[in-house]
Amino acid sequence: MPKILVIHGPNLNLLGEREVDVYGKLTIDEINSALEKTAKEEGVEIEIVQSNHEGEIVELIGKNKGKAGALLINPAAYTHTSVAIRDAISATKLPTVEVHLSNIYAREEFRHTSLVAPVAKGQVSGFGLHSYTLGLKAAASIMRKG
Amino acid sequence: MPKILVIHGPNLNLLGEREVDVYGKLTIDEINSALEKTAKEEGVEIEIVQSNHEGEIVELIGKNKGKAGALLINPAAYTHTSVAIRDAISATKLPTVEVHLSNIYAREEFRHTSLVAPVAKGQVSGFGLHSYTLGLKAAASIMRKG
Amino acid sequence: MPKILVIHGPNLNLLGEREVDVYGKLTIDEINSALEKTAKEEGVEIEIVQSNHEGEIVELIGKNKGKAGALLINPAAYTHTSVAIRDAISATKLPTVEVHLSNIYAREEFRHTSLVAPVAKGQVSGFGLHSYTLGLKAAASIMRKG
Amino acid sequence: MPKILVIHGPNLNLLGEREVDVYGKLTIDEINSALEKTAKEEGVEIEIVQSNHEGEIVELIGKNKGKAGALLINPAAYTHTSVAIRDAISATKLPTVEVHLSNIYAREEFRHTSLVAPVAKGQVSGFGLHSYTLGLKAAASIMRKG
Amino acid sequence: MPKILVIHGPNLNLLGEREVDVYGKLTIDEINSALEKTAKEEGVEIEIVQSNHEGEIVELIGKNKGKAGALLINPAAYTHTSVAIRDAISATKLPTVEVHLSNIYAREEFRHTSLVAPVAKGQVSGFGLHSYTLGLKAAASIMRKG
Amino acid sequence: MPKILVIHGPNLNLLGEREVDVYGKLTIDEINSALEKTAKEEGVEIEIVQSNHEGEIVELIGKNKGKAGALLINPAAYTHTSVAIRDAISATKLPTVEVHLSNIYAREEFRHTSLVAPVAKGQVSGFGLHSYTLGLKAAASIMRKG
Amino acid sequence: MPKILVIHGPNLNLLGEREVDVYGKLTIDEINSALEKTAKEEGVEIEIVQSNHEGEIVELIGKNKGKAGALLINPAAYTHTSVAIRDAISATKLPTVEVHLSNIYAREEFRHTSLVAPVAKGQVSGFGLHSYTLGLKAAASIMRKG
Amino acid sequence: MPKILVIHGPNLNLLGEREVDVYGKLTIDEINSALEKTAKEEGVEIEIVQSNHEGEIVELIGKNKGKAGALLINPAAYTHTSVAIRDAISATKLPTVEVHLSNIYAREEFRHTSLVAPVAKGQVSGFGLHSYTLGLKAAASIMRKG
Amino acid sequence: MPKILVIHGPNLNLLGEREVDVYGKLTIDEINSALEKTAKEEGVEIEIVQSNHEGEIVELIGKNKGKAGALLINPAAYTHTSVAIRDAISATKLPTVEVHLSNIYAREEFRHTSLVAPVAKGQVSGFGLHSYTLGLKAAASIMRKG
Amino acid sequence: MPKILVIHGPNLNLLGEREVDVYGKLTIDEINSALEKTAKEEGVEIEIVQSNHEGEIVELIGKNKGKAGALLINPAAYTHTSVAIRDAISATKLPTVEVHLSNIYAREEFRHTSLVAPVAKGQVSGFGLHSYTLGLKAAASIMRKG
Amino acid sequence: MPKILVIHGPNLNLLGEREVDVYGKLTIDEINSALEKTAKEEGVEIEIVQSNHEGEIVELIGKNKGKAGALLINPAAYTHTSVAIRDAISATKLPTVEVHLSNIYAREEFRHTSLVAPVAKGQVSGFGLHSYTLGLKAAASIMRKG
Amino acid sequence: MPKILVIHGPNLNLLGEREVDVYGKLTIDEINSALEKTAKEEGVEIEIVQSNHEGEIVELIGKNKGKAGALLINPAAYTHTSVAIRDAISATKLPTVEVHLSNIYAREEFRHTSLVAPVAKGQVSGFGLHSYTLGLKAAASIMRKG
Repeated sequence: MPKILVIHGPNLNLLGEREVDVYGKLTIDEINSALEKTAKEEGVEIEIVQSNHEGEIVELIGKNKGKAGALLINPAAYTHTSVAIRDAISATKLPTVEVHLSNIYAREEFRHTSLVAPVAKGQVSGFGLHSYTLGLKAAASIMRKG
Repeated sequence: MPKILVIHGPNLNLLGEREVDVYGKLTIDEINSALEKTAKEEGVEIEIVQSNHEGEIVELIGKNKGKAGALLINPAAYTHTSVAIRDAISATKLPTVEVHLSNIYAREEFRHTSLVAPVAKGQVSGFGLHSYTLGLKAAASIMRKG
Repeated sequence: MPKILVIHGPNLNLLGEREVDVYGKLTIDEINSALEKTAKEEGVEIEIVQSNHEGEIVELIGKNKGKAGALLINPAAYTHTSVAIRDAISATKLPTVEVHLSNIYAREEFRHTSLVAPVAKGQVSGFGLHSYTLGLKAAASIMRKG
Repeated sequence: MPKILVIHGPNLNLLGEREVDVYGKLTIDEINSALEKTAKEEGVEIEIVQSNHEGEIVELIGKNKGKAGALLINPAAYTHTSVAIRDAISATKLPTVEVHLSNIYAREEFRHTSLVAPVAKGQVSGFGLHSYTLGLKAAASIMRKG
Repeated sequence: MPKILVIHGPNLNLLGEREVDVYGKLTIDEINSALEKTAKEEGVEIEIVQSNHEGEIVELIGKNKGKAGALLINPAAYTHTSVAIRDAISATKLPTVEVHLSNIYAREEFRHTSLVAPVAKGQVSGFGLHSYTLGLKAAASIMRKG
Repeated sequence: MPKILVIHGPNLNLLGEREVDVYGKLTIDEINSALEKTAKEEGVEIEIVQSNHEGEIVELIGKNKGKAGALLINPAAYTHTSVAIRDAISATKLPTVEVHLSNIYAREEFRHTSLVAPVAKGQVSGFGLHSYTLGLKAAASIMRKG
Repeated sequence: MPKILVIHGPNLNLLGEREVDVYGKLTIDEINSALEKTAKEEGVEIEIVQSNHEGEIVELIGKNKGKAGALLINPAAYTHTSVAIRDAISATKLPTVEVHLSNIYAREEFRHTSLVAPVAKGQVSGFGLHSYTLGLKAAASIMRKG
Repeated sequence: MPKILVIHGPNLNLLGEREVDVYGKLTIDEINSALEKTAKEEGVEIEIVQSNHEGEIVELIGKNKGKAGALLINPAAYTHTSVAIRDAISATKLPTVEVHLSNIYAREEFRHTSLVAPVAKGQVSGFGLHSYTLGLKAAASIMRKG
Repeated sequence: MPKILVIHGPNLNLLGEREVDVYGKLTIDEINSALEKTAKEEGVEIEIVQSNHEGEIVELIGKNKGKAGALLINPAAYTHTSVAIRDAISATKLPTVEVHLSNIYAREEFRHTSLVAPVAKGQVSGFGLHSYTLGLKAAASIMRKG
Repeated sequence: MPKILVIHGPNLNLLGEREVDVYGKLTIDEINSALEKTAKEEGVEIEIVQSNHEGEIVELIGKNKGKAGALLINPAAYTHTSVAIRDAISATKLPTVEVHLSNIYAREEFRHTSLVAPVAKGQVSGFGLHSYTLGLKAAASIMRKG
Repeated sequence: MPKILVIHGPNLNLLGEREVDVYGKLTIDEINSALEKTAKEEGVEIEIVQSNHEGEIVELIGKNKGKAGALLINPAAYTHTSVAIRDAISATKLPTVEVHLSNIYAREEFRHTSLVAPVAKGQVSGFGLHSYTLGLKAAASIMRKG
Repeated sequence: MPKILVIHGPNLNLLGEREVDVYGKLTIDEINSALEKTAKEEGVEIEIVQSNHEGEIVELIGKNKGKAGALLINPAAYTHTSVAIRDAISATKLPTVEVHLSNIYAREEFRHTSLVAPVAKGQVSGFGLHSYTLGLKAAASIMRKG
């Protein structure tokens, strides 16, 4: 069975130190450990990448065409501005689950619109660490159905 | 530990027969069975109600103030039009998980805005039956943390 | 041949006494009599309901799935605010004719948009009592064609 | 009793060959025959004109001031762009029934607004050939009432 | 002299427990007592109803046509979404005073627009309990003038 | 106990002669007499000023910082255009009651927005002379609570 | 000295009979007589045309390039919809005075925008017959200055 | 016969030195001389005031209620921002002619909207000095008709 | 092989004399010669028409249904206002290439929207004479592919 | 060398006492002292005025035409509403530096737009007292360059 | 003669495999071969680069200042979001031809706006492979003219 | 004392050669020299980086968390499009001064909005080289205050 590609978008490398009132003390390493644990439970393999570069994310998705079985992505700031990431998802037809740590609908208005959402299978947002693990379960389930 | 209140909004009683191209053949009974099963796994009690009436949903939420520990709601059409359900959630302070069967961001533009989202803890959308079961896991986790 | 369901939306019970400058002295009983007469001429059976409750109208439409052959509805105020009635029509696939006593496009701007129109077969508006009888003829014709 | 003027707007001469998925195979001759038949039943005389020219339609309406008793018009594309036709209707005070073959509210957004609607008595739309015949009945009824 | 109908809209039954930072500890019973006291001072009779149902409020207003002399209403969440309540007020021509506990113009933007305001005689908002008692004085005064 | 400052905005000196269909025959002197009478009943002192100058009103509010206990203001035309008066109220922290003779929400659209409302404690509008006297009662009550 | 071209736009042939509450009983012949008289006073020659056709007006302007010294135009309904007339004015560089019988800014909102205004020298509106004669004086003065 | 009040709005005292590319070298004194000359020709008396203060202009209009027979005003910058001047004109019912030296529709977008226009009888704009003299002729004519 | 219909929209007959700063000194005859030359190179026959009339263009397109193999059109001013030309293209299903001499996206904002573009195969704009010849090559290529 | 005119807009006389959370405890006297000190360092003369009146500010700028060498202005509330001050700056061609104590882009949305900015040379905002002193340095530098 | 720089924007490396319903089976290699062939015919040299990185494209354009004679660019997703690429084109003054494989005006609304278009010489869109070859011809022609 | 990080955004490497009418002949080296000189005067250390890559800038800011004491940034084109840079500033809590060479409020409308401004301490714009040196003074002052 193909792996699931996991992409952390821009600034997520700063988690834990960043805006603790919004995101809590959770670090990217803790998220990754939880993802590895859930992956095992679900019997899927995952590959995790963090990138601050829109172009790098676009390329990564493009290269995984026909290789990854699904995409779990937290596009972070690029959620609201990147047509290129949206097009990469459309172009590769990777089944995509969009996740957000915080509830983006309870934040600034410009964060209410996601350019990625219309081409994703679904979203999970607002549950912190759990947004990722529930999202991975959803991605695994979609991949299994084929 | 208090129960989790599960509310199915308007027209969800017609599921399985309704717009099969959008929602598939899934019925409300199948969702409820899956929810009961997940509830057992999570060790939580649930109470499930379907209503087509905005006022009834408002009242149900109001009556569960201090009784239910969390709310799992698919507000369906009222997602986009009901300030009253939003206010009921704010007024009762019930931790709320909003779920949608389909990806509302890939549908008509008036379905892109949720009046409930800003007062919910988080959302799960686009995964059909799994939106509910993942949402219930999220609700159980929130309730356990207190 | 299945019946045609006729629904009068909110406040239409007050017709004749209500805003005489806009709606004239016509009463709901006069409309119903005219509808019964037209139904006989067209050889169709009709069932007429008036309701002020959005949820009740949603339920009524849902219950007529597979029973009624067409829906003739004056959604009145809910024309402009009810996604739930729109969804009920989509979910039941009842061929729907939307009617209005007055010309809604010559009134306040918020009355120019109908949430029901995009899922209806067609509309008749502005002809008072005749909006209903012409609408019933249209509904009967649609039902006959199958 | 004065005649009813019937105007077919731009491109309606192409009906039957035009966008069959939207308008069906109905031709303008079939519509005109049906109108003549309905006119007889209603005991009214009609004069039918098709024009692709906004100015010609404006002039035709102007010339019928005090001659025609009512106007049945499918302004087609000019529905959404012609202030001049609207003004001609206002200026001549001809009681006007606006008809559309298709449900304009279920098409592109720029077709949702009618500049003619606010100065018409009423509209019938979405019923194909029947939009015209029902519209003619409405026009005849308005004319009879004076 | 006819009574004044007092309507509390959705979620107001939860007052005192609800969003204390916005609404304070005031309960609906305290409001009702104050209203009764003011009614006596003004020499008017009042009938008080709380409802979470839009349709119920619409019906209540409709039934009081010709019975109540004025309407004092806090439409709460329905202020911003209910064309049906607005139409009920127009249809019955009940002189209406709209009240709000909090200053709705200092809250979320979607609360800045009132569909009821244009058909009300006037509004009182922002003074907590006093919004109701001052509003009742205004309603009594309007009723006395006839 | 500190006085309550009462400010009549631009053109209110013309009342009684001005747009009688909108404002009635009420004069500013009659309003002032009624205010004096209500002030006595409430046991508060008032100081009344009328000004057509935005800057003068700004200055008057600024000078009453720490002197007046509350502000009762009908900003009239400046309601919709003056950020400066809004800032003066914020800067002085004078508890402010905004009043309008007519129901501004039933007039031209540009009168529906008040720049003052978000920094006022509350508003009373639509009751003519009574908007002022009820507003003064509200101001007195706020001042007494401190 | 070159002539001044005077163009009356669509429906102006109906003046005097048209919407008397808006335009008065003034006829196009009376306007033309007044224009001839003013032309004599100003010592200019004029040529007057009325047309209901946008294309005809475009062509007329095009043909007068280098022949007419100025253009006096009441574009009527085309004021708000014709980019083609605007382009004809730009293309021919005819100094243009735009006139309107009524005050277009006191009418429906869609009449507040003029596509012609930005390419005209100036406008005169709201003075009935005088809009034309004052406009002709302005055109003559512009032409004299070169 | 009553005088005509002429008001020059803010910054017009700087004319001739101000933005020569937009306004030319014309000075306010030259305008006033031309106005005096035209006034004589028309047999009317005029009173001319220049003010940079919105409040002063409001007051001036208010004081001329029943004294001036008409108002000729170039509101300059206040055209676009002053509800108070608009209200003063409405309140005094002075027949008003609005003039502008330049074509405001060929300038920045915020200059395209006039708050004064809807309450004026008519406007003359774009003709420099002639906007004033033609406007005065229009005002004189309106005043003579009563 | 069927001919390609070439339509020049309104005011293009004035080219070369018109707004030289925008369009250069190019005349319509020079464009036509270049088109004839390119047509020969491509081995296609062309028919060229210039019209200032929207209705005439609509009719011309309608008449070429089944006769022309492709349409090369510079709709000029009608680009932005004509739903009728758009509908004629849809109705006849003529493969259409839209051309513009200037870069419409570098001009006034109302020129940025083309009603024709969504029903055209493609556009060429900004290259002066070359917009036409490149557009003709594109049209020939589309026609050859069938 | 000519002086630099420094204008403090409305409510700035209240500084130090006003909205301490937004503006700190800084007083206008402290700003003026700092400005005098910086002026000395820069070798320029300054004249400082505070005014709450839009008209007064307009006049002050007008009178300094040809006298002052530059303008340093904190238009405060008038930043967002005064076309007149903008026009005064354009008319006098005084090189202008706009300053704000707070970061206006981090406050209410209506404070994000400055009518003055497009005609100023530059802005300094968000640095409290330093906005003024840095702004004065910029003004002095501009003036020195001529 | 300087070379023409050809830039393929993000995701174009995936062509042929990507959204075949929108873009067909065309690959980037086929486009490049066709470009080389056309370049030979036109007697120009080309350099072709594909990049998924906005910054890389910005840099590439910057480095070609004074080196390349023209730019042929398909900015793909960055068309709608990149001010930086637009600024690079403005800064280098490279004559630019913008091309698109598909007709962007017949796709999602957010693809209708191009940030690059206003600074390009012209666009070619909707002709698949031919958009590139026609665009190259246009670029060569522009470059030859100097 | 920690260093101040100075970031030049995209295309600023082209300064001096770029759009001389907007930015003058100033080069990035001249800016850097002036910054070094000012840094010495202020007694602060600076590190200067220019980057055309959004992701690179995001990373640079992230890496300076806890290392730099303040950020001086000219985000250039990314000012208007980068949520990622905004988030990097929020995440690192680096006190940030935003600078612009030109007055962005006097340029195209899409340059009037800054996504960075709401999270910056303040802005300096419009003064060319001086925007940087004044901005550095502001940054140094903020850093000293802690």
